[in-house]
Amino acid sequence: MTTAPPAPESRRGPSCPVELTLEVIGGKWATVILAHLKEGVHRYGELRRRIPAVSEKMLVQRLRTLESHGLIHRTATGPKGAEIVEYRLTEEGTTLVPVLDALYTWGLSRASRTGVRFPPLE
Amino acid sequence: MTTAPPAPESRRGPSCPVELTLEVIGGKWATVILAHLKEGVHRYGELRRRIPAVSEKMLVQRLRTLESHGLIHRTATGPKGAEIVEYRLTEEGTTLVPVLDALYTWGLSRASRTGVRFPPLE
Repeated sequence: MTTAPPAPESRRGPSCPVELTLEVIGGKWATVILAHLKEGVHRYGELRRRIPAVSEKMLVQRLRTLESHGLIHRTATGPKGAEIVEYRLTEEGTTLVPVLDALYTWGLSRASRTGVRFPPLE
Repeated sequence: MTTAPPAPESRRGPSCPVELTLEVIGGKWATVILAHLKEGVHRYGELRRRIPAVSEKMLVQRLRTLESHGLIHRTATGPKGAEIVEYRLTEEGTTLVPVLDALYTWGLSRASRTGVRFPPLE
C-alpha cells in the first residue's frame, strides 16, 4: 500500500504571499485564537469561553498546529494533575499583529453596516 | 425527515469581529481570489492560471460565494457560447484592501524568513 500523494498546494508551494499567510495562520479558528492571544496571555479555559462556537477537540488541534508553526507558546505550571496551562504569542506570532488588527477593524465596520452585534466579553 | 440543525456559529452569530471577517471572506481560496482581484479586473481564465492549486470546481464555488456576499461582481459580455467572463471587486469588496494588504505583506516577510519563493506571475 502506498500513502496518498501530498495535496497540490504542498507539492507546488504557495503561489503568492497571501496564500502562504493563509496556510500558516490556517483557517478561521486558528486566526480567532491568535486574535485573542494578541490581547495578552490566556489560560486554556479562557479561550474555551471566548470562542464558544468551537468544539474542544478542534480548539486543542488548532492550538497544537499554531504551536508547531511557532506562532504561539504553551506553558504548564503548578502541580501535576492541576496544571495551569497558558498560551501566548511568540515573537513570530506578534509579527501577525497588523494582520489581526486589519481583520478586527474590517469585522467591526462590516458589523456596523449589516447590524451584527457581538456578545460582551466576560 | 428533518433538515440538519444549523452549525453552532450560525446559530450564535460570530463571537468577535475577527470571526465575522473570516466568515465573510471565507477561507484560503476565497481570500486568494480577492487578493488577485485587488490588483484589477480578471478574466476567469486568468484566475485559473494565477491560482494553479485550486480545482476548477472549488474556484467556481468560491466565486459564487464571494458574489453572494457582495464582495465581487461578475460580468459576461460577447456572443452566447463565447462570452468573456470578468470579475472585479465591488465597492464593499474594496473595503477589504487593508486586510488583503496586511495578508500580503506578512506572507512576503514570512517567505523571506523561511526561504519560500513564489513563482513569477505570467
